[in-house]
Amino acid sequence: MREVAIIGIGQTVVDEHWDKSLRELGGEAVLAALKDANREIVDGIFVGNMMSGILSHQESLGALIADWVGMRGVEAFKVEGACGSGAAALRLGMMAVSSGEMDSAVVLGVEKMTESLPIETTAALATAADADFESAQGLSFVAINALVMRRYLHEYGWKHTDFAPFSINAHANAVHNPFARLRETVNEKDYHNARMIADPINLLDASPTGDGAAAVVIVPAEMLRFNGGRIITIAGSGAATDSLAVHDRHDPLWLSAAELSAKKAYKQAGVGPEDIDVFELHDAFSIMSALSLEACGFAERGQGPRLGLDGDILPKGRIPICTRGGLKARGHPVGATGIYQIVEVVQQLRGEAGPTQVDGAKIGMAQNIGGSGALIVAHILKVN
Amino acid sequence: MREVAIIGIGQTVVDEHWDKSLRELGGEAVLAALKDANREIVDGIFVGNMMSGILSHQESLGALIADWVGMRGVEAFKVEGACGSGAAALRLGMMAVSSGEMDSAVVLGVEKMTESLPIETTAALATAADADFESAQGLSFVAINALVMRRYLHEYGWKHTDFAPFSINAHANAVHNPFARLRETVNEKDYHNARMIADPINLLDASPTGDGAAAVVIVPAEMLRFNGGRIITIAGSGAATDSLAVHDRHDPLWLSAAELSAKKAYKQAGVGPEDIDVFELHDAFSIMSALSLEACGFAERGQGPRLGLDGDILPKGRIPICTRGGLKARGHPVGATGIYQIVEVVQQLRGEAGPTQVDGAKIGMAQNIGGSGALIVAHILKVN
Repeated sequence: MREVAIIGIGQTVVDEHWDKSLRELGGEAVLAALKDANREIVDGIFVGNMMSGILSHQESLGALIADWVGMRGVEAFKVEGACGSGAAALRLGMMAVSSGEMDSAVVLGVEKMTESLPIETTAALATAADADFESAQGLSFVAINALVMRRYLHEYGWKHTDFAPFSINAHANAVHNPFARLRETVNEKDYHNARMIADPINLLDASPTGDGAAAVVIVPAEMLRFNGGRIITIAGSGAATDSLAVHDRHDPLWLSAAELSAKKAYKQAGVGPEDIDVFELHDAFSIMSALSLEACGFAERGQGPRLGLDGDILPKGRIPICTRGGLKARGHPVGATGIYQIVEVVQQLRGEAGPTQVDGAKIGMAQNIGGSGALIVAHILKVN
Repeated sequence: MREVAIIGIGQTVVDEHWDKSLRELGGEAVLAALKDANREIVDGIFVGNMMSGILSHQESLGALIADWVGMRGVEAFKVEGACGSGAAALRLGMMAVSSGEMDSAVVLGVEKMTESLPIETTAALATAADADFESAQGLSFVAINALVMRRYLHEYGWKHTDFAPFSINAHANAVHNPFARLRETVNEKDYHNARMIADPINLLDASPTGDGAAAVVIVPAEMLRFNGGRIITIAGSGAATDSLAVHDRHDPLWLSAAELSAKKAYKQAGVGPEDIDVFELHDAFSIMSALSLEACGFAERGQGPRLGLDGDILPKGRIPICTRGGLKARGHPVGATGIYQIVEVVQQLRGEAGPTQVDGAKIGMAQNIGGSGALIVAHILKVN
């Protein structure tokens, strides 16, 4: 098995890109990543995307993007794992390069969500949940997360405002990220006064949707060794599933697929939670930040909010999260999010994260969640 | 790179399965394949599917299937490449096992198309084409193929009835396949009198949709060697793309992605067209049979129909195609089709194809087409 390195990154700002079609948006990120990698062509293209068929009436995304970026002929596939589609595409791309079938690949995450009516987007997002046992009952995706958060508050005795630091940190960091959707700070008062969406989830607990695309170029690490210099490798990679419907879980307050995927990635990378310098987690809702920190070994069960209250999650804290704004403030174009996270970890490991740079970051983790924890993919990147 | 073997196959009959949900249908094929392989669990699940999000309001298919078949926790992904989704999933699954990241995997193709209104299914199928430049102009998928067939008749001087043998052969073979949707013979008169769909494509030029699922279990071949006995390996695998929109092609009558993917597979397997004993091609429309035979080296350019007229495509012919009914008569549940083809080639190589068994079949090819030739994936299987 060949180790795989990331040699190029590209992204578009997360926004309402009404002037750009799906292919233009995705193409922009791919071309930026190729330019960053100083490459013109690769052997394969992997497109992480969730809802182009529903919202843009367009499938065949692999061929669409390959042709648009000038690589007609090159093999190309779409990978879907709901909001975890981006990291899922990276994992499959990584295995393709690792296997020797490809010597290079681009992994793109792209999603276009803002050209549809909000009700259409909400319905499309609900396809991430169990269509027969959740969505069919009228449960939207935010409603499912609201039930989980309500139960969490009850079970572990936290107040809603104890989750404020997650939102405040994400927004503070996004101010310095030119690709973020919400580049504005918020404070405790804003959080307290934010409009309710699905009790107890308010506007500042929830990540905004958006149109966006992010891409990385991967090659076998062995091809770079002779150059000397810094190499960023995918040192660990793991994925796991859980039941789609939250009510089917043994414990609805424990992301077992997050735990399992992180453990696989830790084992492969030969590290533990204590070695992670920066952690781009999947804060689609603030409750997911707490659950992710717990499942990945950074906090005891039920104690996730403590890391926010203690400042551990800040760029200078013990386990910095959402250093470029996270889903909450960078934005959450669902199928693209997993690759935005990878791009952001690479920025940290390159020392290119600006005012929110984590000092001396050498090992970073990204974890991307599909559905309410149904498919979770973790990657650990290392500077070698 | 580890060679990959297919050790189990499973399928459901292609039909209107109104009594089975998407997960039940997919689960049935997976469990049948696991039983055939004498396995209970694998390391990963790959689901080829095109339109579950649109027609069943269900994405997250990987996690959905993993949980349903009793493998909650195991990593699982959906792969999309329009009607080529099945073979695309196999190619990615093969690379995952080949890389060493997984020691076993199930690759499932599943599609549920008959619970929706026909207009909804037609619209969903159109997402395989270029949404901006084809579908938005009102071109349905069959209309695009009709334009190609009309041009082909004009360019090479064939009569419409010269395509009858493709349909007649497929139907004759399906009679002996218990999993086929249309188990009835047709003759030249039927073909001549068939109802027109999109001139010149009539009902007997076109494959029927349907609900269906097919699955295979794959492992590294090295794990089987010590057992002795017959092993069926994926000796060659290749994929390639072309422009999504047919009008963008250099030659709309040449499937360059079919040529490219077949050449890659031939090269990897160390064989040529003359070595292929059976070829399960993608006869979504009879014109595609002709184009596939030409692009893969079995006929000269513009001479595909000759192989039908000369009887070369029959089970006892020079290059038997659609030996279990093909898309035309087995049925075409789009995302599942690529795996049905693989299952059928395995049946031939095992000598389990009944009255349509190809004598002494040792090397078989399957080629699955996404869109009007936009993503094409070829696999060559060998008995070792």
